[in-house]
Amino acid sequence: MKKSDTAKKNVAWQALLLHKKLGGKIRMVPATPIRNRSDLSLVYTPGVATVSRVIAKNPKLARMYTIKKRMVAVISDGSAVLGLGNIGALGALPVMEGKCALFKTFAGVDAIPLVLDLSTTVEAGTQAEIDAIVETVLRVAPAFGGINLEDIAAPKCFEIERRVIEALDIPVMHDDQHGTAVVVLSALINAFKVVGKKFSSARIVILGAGAAGSATARLLHAAGAKNIIVLDSKGIVDSRRPEAHKRELATFNTKRITGGLHEALKGADVLLGVSGPDLVKAADIRLMASRAIVLAMANPVPEIMPDEAKRGGAMIVGTGRSDFPNQINNSLAFPGIFRGALDHKVTKITQQMKIKAAHAIAALVKKPTPERIIPDMFDKRVAPVVAKAMAGKPAVAKVIR
Amino acid sequence: MKKSDTAKKNVAWQALLLHKKLGGKIRMVPATPIRNRSDLSLVYTPGVATVSRVIAKNPKLARMYTIKKRMVAVISDGSAVLGLGNIGALGALPVMEGKCALFKTFAGVDAIPLVLDLSTTVEAGTQAEIDAIVETVLRVAPAFGGINLEDIAAPKCFEIERRVIEALDIPVMHDDQHGTAVVVLSALINAFKVVGKKFSSARIVILGAGAAGSATARLLHAAGAKNIIVLDSKGIVDSRRPEAHKRELATFNTKRITGGLHEALKGADVLLGVSGPDLVKAADIRLMASRAIVLAMANPVPEIMPDEAKRGGAMIVGTGRSDFPNQINNSLAFPGIFRGALDHKVTKITQQMKIKAAHAIAALVKKPTPERIIPDMFDKRVAPVVAKAMAGKPAVAKVIR
Repeated sequence: MKKSDTAKKNVAWQALLLHKKLGGKIRMVPATPIRNRSDLSLVYTPGVATVSRVIAKNPKLARMYTIKKRMVAVISDGSAVLGLGNIGALGALPVMEGKCALFKTFAGVDAIPLVLDLSTTVEAGTQAEIDAIVETVLRVAPAFGGINLEDIAAPKCFEIERRVIEALDIPVMHDDQHGTAVVVLSALINAFKVVGKKFSSARIVILGAGAAGSATARLLHAAGAKNIIVLDSKGIVDSRRPEAHKRELATFNTKRITGGLHEALKGADVLLGVSGPDLVKAADIRLMASRAIVLAMANPVPEIMPDEAKRGGAMIVGTGRSDFPNQINNSLAFPGIFRGALDHKVTKITQQMKIKAAHAIAALVKKPTPERIIPDMFDKRVAPVVAKAMAGKPAVAKVIR
Repeated sequence: MKKSDTAKKNVAWQALLLHKKLGGKIRMVPATPIRNRSDLSLVYTPGVATVSRVIAKNPKLARMYTIKKRMVAVISDGSAVLGLGNIGALGALPVMEGKCALFKTFAGVDAIPLVLDLSTTVEAGTQAEIDAIVETVLRVAPAFGGINLEDIAAPKCFEIERRVIEALDIPVMHDDQHGTAVVVLSALINAFKVVGKKFSSARIVILGAGAAGSATARLLHAAGAKNIIVLDSKGIVDSRRPEAHKRELATFNTKRITGGLHEALKGADVLLGVSGPDLVKAADIRLMASRAIVLAMANPVPEIMPDEAKRGGAMIVGTGRSDFPNQINNSLAFPGIFRGALDHKVTKITQQMKIKAAHAIAALVKKPTPERIIPDMFDKRVAPVVAKAMAGKPAVAKVIR
C-alpha cells in the first residue's frame, strides 16, 4: 500500500470515529439563559406574545426580533454531493452539517442544515421534482435570513436557484455555482498580474459545463473576459446544444472555436478544470500559450496533477487540494458573502457584488507569485473583506485591466 | 392604571427589548473546533466523504453519525399561536425559538424552529393546505431525530399529526395536544390522592374540544377514566357532531349527559378548562361535587380565577400561570418526552408512554397537598424521570387506583 493510501485510510477512519463521537457536528444553544420564571416570562410566555403580535402586524420586524436576522439554511436534495453523486438526503447530511460549522467558524453566521427527501411525492429527474424542491424551499423560508443551496445537480440547480431567488426577499445562492466562480475569479485576478497578460483578451478554457463551470463562465464574462470556451464530455459546447444553459455558454466562445479539448487549448491562456479526475495530460498543456494558468479543481483527484501541469509548461497551477499551493476553495467566499448579505440586508446577491468580493479576496495577496495567487482559507481577514464587498449600492465593478 | 397592568406592560416592553438585543433566541455552534486543515479534513472534505458514503449505503447509520441522533424540529404553520390565533409563520417564529431554547435548557435537546408559509401555493383552510403541511414536514424530516408539531389549529392538527406519525420512523408529537394531556394527567393523579376519590368513576368535565381538550380526553380515557364530558362553544359534544374527533369524544360521555356547562358540571368531580378567559363563575363551581378539582388553563386569563373557584367550593385549583399555585405547564412534559424518545430510539410515542410519563411526574411530589399537586417546572428531576418513562417495552401502564 502506498503511503498516501495509508494516509487516506487514516483520515477516513478518523472522520468516522469523530462523527460517531460527536453524533452531529453542530449544536443549538439558547442565546440567553433561562434560569427562573422571570427569564422565562421574557423569552417565552407571556412576554413573547407581544413580540409575536408586533411581528404579525409588521412582518418586516422579524429581521429585528428573530433568528431571521442571523440564520442561514443550508439546503440540499443530495443529488450531487462532493464527488459522490446522487446519494440522497441522509448521505448529504454530514456535508451540510460541516458547511454549517464552517459558516460559524469563518464568519460567525448561524446556519442549519436541511436535507430534502422528495422521493415519496415526486419522481426523480422530472419537472415535478424541480417544482417540489422550489415549493419546499419557499415554504420553509420564513425563519431564515438567507438560503445557501448546496450540492444540487445541474441542470436542475439553475432553474431551482432562479425561481427561489425571484420568489424570496432574502439572499439565495447555490454555492457550488457562485462560491466556486468567485474564488476562481479571485485567483485569476492575481494570476494575470503574475503572468502579465490581459484578462479581457485572454483565451479561457473551462472543462466542465455543470454547476461550477457554468457559473464561472458567466462570472468571468461579467468581469470582462471576452473569449471563453466551455467544454463538456461531448466537446466544445455550441449553439446547437439541447440544454439552454449550454447554448448561453456557447455565446462566450466569440472566436467560434469548434472541436474538443485540443482545439480549445491551442493557444489558450487559462485552463479551468471543474470536471473529473485525470482528464488532462502534460501534452495537452503544451498546446497552451506560454505562461499558462491551470486551475484543476476536481476533488480529490484533479484533472491534472500539479507536477504534470508544470511539466507541460504551465506557469501557475492551482487545485482544490490543501496539499499543493494555490488551493481554490469555496470557503474563501461563501461565509463572507452571507455574512455581508445579512449585515447589509442584501436581498439579491448580484454579479457585481461577486466581482467586488473576488477583487477583495485577491487584494489580500499583496505580491502574488506563481506559488501564491490566493489567500489561505484560514486567513481571518478574508470573510470580513468579502462581507464588506456586499455592502452599499452595487457599484459598477472594476473590469480587470 | 392597575398595578398588574403596569407589570404586564413592563414584561411586554422588556421582552421586546430583549428580543431586539438578541436578534433571535438561539444560536448554532460547531460541536468541535475547526482550527486548521487537519480539523477540516475530518469535519469536512475529504473525511466527510467517507461518512456520507457509509450513510448512503446504510441510511440507519445517520442516527449514529449525524444530528439526526439529537436534533428535533419544532414546526408550526402559525395557525393557532398562544392566545393570538392564526398569526402566520413569522408571527409564530419567536414562540418556536423560545420552545427550542426550553428544549435545550430543560432536557439538553437540540432543537430548531421551522415555520411554514403555505400561502403561496395553497388556500388556507382547505384539504390542500393539510396535504401541503404533511408533505412539507415529510420532505424536511431526514435531518431530524424527532418532530414537535406546535401551534397548529384544530381540527387540522389531528389529521396532520396522524399522517406524519404514520409516514415517519421518528417520534412525532403535536405538543399542544399531548404535552398538555400528560401534565393534566399528572396533576390529576396527585389531586385524586388529595381529595380521596376514585379516578375511574369520577365525572370529568373538559371545557374545550380543541387540540388540548381532545388529547386530554383521550389520554384520561386511556388511563382509566370512564366518565368524561367534553364541551365546546355549542355545549356538550354528542354523536351528531359533524367533526369526527368530536364524535369520538362523545363516546367518553358514558352517562349520555346532554345540555351545556350547567348540566355537565352537576355533581362533577373535575373541571378542566382548555378554552378561553372568564367562561366559568363561582356559581358554576357550586354545581360540582364536594372536594372538586378545577384546572383552569386558559392563558393568560383562566376560565375562572383561583380565588373565585375556591369561593365556589373547589378544593384544588390549578392554572397555566406562574403567579398561582399548581402551574399546569407543558414544559414539564415535552422536553423529557423527546429526550427519552431520542435516547431510547423510540419511533412512536404511545399513549402508554405518556401515561407512564404522567405517573413519573406526579411521583416527584411525595406528599401532594391542595396547593401542590405538581412539581415546579424548574425542578431538575422532571425531565430525567419523564425521559426514563419513554424507555423499554411499552409496559401496560398503571390505571390510576
